[in-house]
Amino acid sequence: MEIVRTVNEMIAITDRLKQENKTIGFVPTMGYLHEGHTTLMDESKKYADVLIASIFVNPLQFGPGEDFERYPRDEERDQEIAEQHSVDILFLPTVDEMYPQEATIKLHVQKRTDVLCGKSRPGHFDGVATVLTKLFHLTKADFTFFGLKDAQQVAVVKGLIDDFNFRTKLIAVPTVRELDGLAKSSRNVYLSEEERKEAAHLYKALCTGQQLIIDGEKNPVMIIEEVKKYLDRETNGKIEYVDLLTFPSLKPIGSIDQQVIIAVAVQFTKARLIDNLIISENGTVPKAIV
Amino acid sequence: MEIVRTVNEMIAITDRLKQENKTIGFVPTMGYLHEGHTTLMDESKKYADVLIASIFVNPLQFGPGEDFERYPRDEERDQEIAEQHSVDILFLPTVDEMYPQEATIKLHVQKRTDVLCGKSRPGHFDGVATVLTKLFHLTKADFTFFGLKDAQQVAVVKGLIDDFNFRTKLIAVPTVRELDGLAKSSRNVYLSEEERKEAAHLYKALCTGQQLIIDGEKNPVMIIEEVKKYLDRETNGKIEYVDLLTFPSLKPIGSIDQQVIIAVAVQFTKARLIDNLIISENGTVPKAIV
Repeated sequence: MEIVRTVNEMIAITDRLKQENKTIGFVPTMGYLHEGHTTLMDESKKYADVLIASIFVNPLQFGPGEDFERYPRDEERDQEIAEQHSVDILFLPTVDEMYPQEATIKLHVQKRTDVLCGKSRPGHFDGVATVLTKLFHLTKADFTFFGLKDAQQVAVVKGLIDDFNFRTKLIAVPTVRELDGLAKSSRNVYLSEEERKEAAHLYKALCTGQQLIIDGEKNPVMIIEEVKKYLDRETNGKIEYVDLLTFPSLKPIGSIDQQVIIAVAVQFTKARLIDNLIISENGTVPKAIV
Repeated sequence: MEIVRTVNEMIAITDRLKQENKTIGFVPTMGYLHEGHTTLMDESKKYADVLIASIFVNPLQFGPGEDFERYPRDEERDQEIAEQHSVDILFLPTVDEMYPQEATIKLHVQKRTDVLCGKSRPGHFDGVATVLTKLFHLTKADFTFFGLKDAQQVAVVKGLIDDFNFRTKLIAVPTVRELDGLAKSSRNVYLSEEERKEAAHLYKALCTGQQLIIDGEKNPVMIIEEVKKYLDRETNGKIEYVDLLTFPSLKPIGSIDQQVIIAVAVQFTKARLIDNLIISENGTVPKAIV
């Protein structure tokens, strides 16, 4: 595995790879790698000759008061995990390397952001779109892998790629879960023992919603209510939202007549957890989502 | 020469070209081709194996009341000229092909735009940056050629490429002029006979400014005043601006101690003409500008 820390090295390496007609898979991460990430890495091997992963805690996507400084980092362990999962090139740029001068141009995500997590994180997806634009260019990625845990991110990235004709193909990979259903996340380490048990109910709440759709419920309001009730009963966390929207356009819907997302966010003492299910009109989980 | 009208064809062609390890030169235009454009095409042949030119009158970069509808178009003649200048692939997309759905993301150019033409054309460079982002991706351009006649555009594109690590190299090509010094432009056809004669004085006014710098004048205010006086005396057009700024950062300057641009815009009856000179600290015209 090659460790790359500068933009210029990445440019030289990807120029060479493309001259050799290699296809490139890319997994962008903020590090503190877990199975959610390694699943994406393993997936890349099915698509591309070479796997590039990046670890960059992107300051642009953290708001004031968010956990940029506190975001967990463990570069040594991350390098081991990346190596174990056959990463060929690990890109570890500094903030100065990625943002060497004041920006002359700003990317603003104006759709798909005023719902779910985007609602309470103004500017977050602007930062995500900006860093991905740079990383797509630097890695010359033919395929880029995202976990569906961050489904809103997948929706925004789909918009980014479509709007600007990026030449990378977005591969959305199903959420990886613990045995009890809890979606894997770097932030799970902040849960107390009690909260960890409760956290499994986020997924179970979503399944309750899915079951209602399978049973023929078409009214989103009814489904949202049932999911909320379930979460209220089973956790002490503060429900930030439960929502049901079209996917990937993330629009409200009057009756379930197309692919939708049910998404929840719950604030525990130190960790804010999110989870979602993408469900087709008849209640099944679709194979190809975007 | 291959005529390409769809995004999907462009993707297939550029994928193939890159598999064959061809380097790609790209000349983006709005058509109604003249020597300003063909000079860029000829220049590309020195850099790249394959030359792609695009003709697309981009509605996003025209403001309300600007000349989008009235912008001159002559596709048949343009095809002949492109063929004569060894264009390999001529990309002629429709507006629907370039903007098939409502944008989810907006590009906003926040530096280098509140001066010169940008000042009176809010949103213009947002449109330019948006279409170029798409075209850079679609053409997989290794080199993109711009005329220095639109020097502010060169400055903005330089910012775009640097900010987002685009993999295309910007080649800024000196302005092509008529024998009397008038910068070639599609809009020159709108000049009356009398105005056409006066229009040559835009360049002469700039040269007056340059001569002052060569003679050791360091005060931008003095130089701007002299250029204005010259234009006032020699033309009946309305001077929209005369300015002297750093280049490519386009910032005001107290004393001439680095590369600068002197730029003018004059409104004639039906045509608004612009021209500029980029000049190094000692008054010479620099070879490599960006």
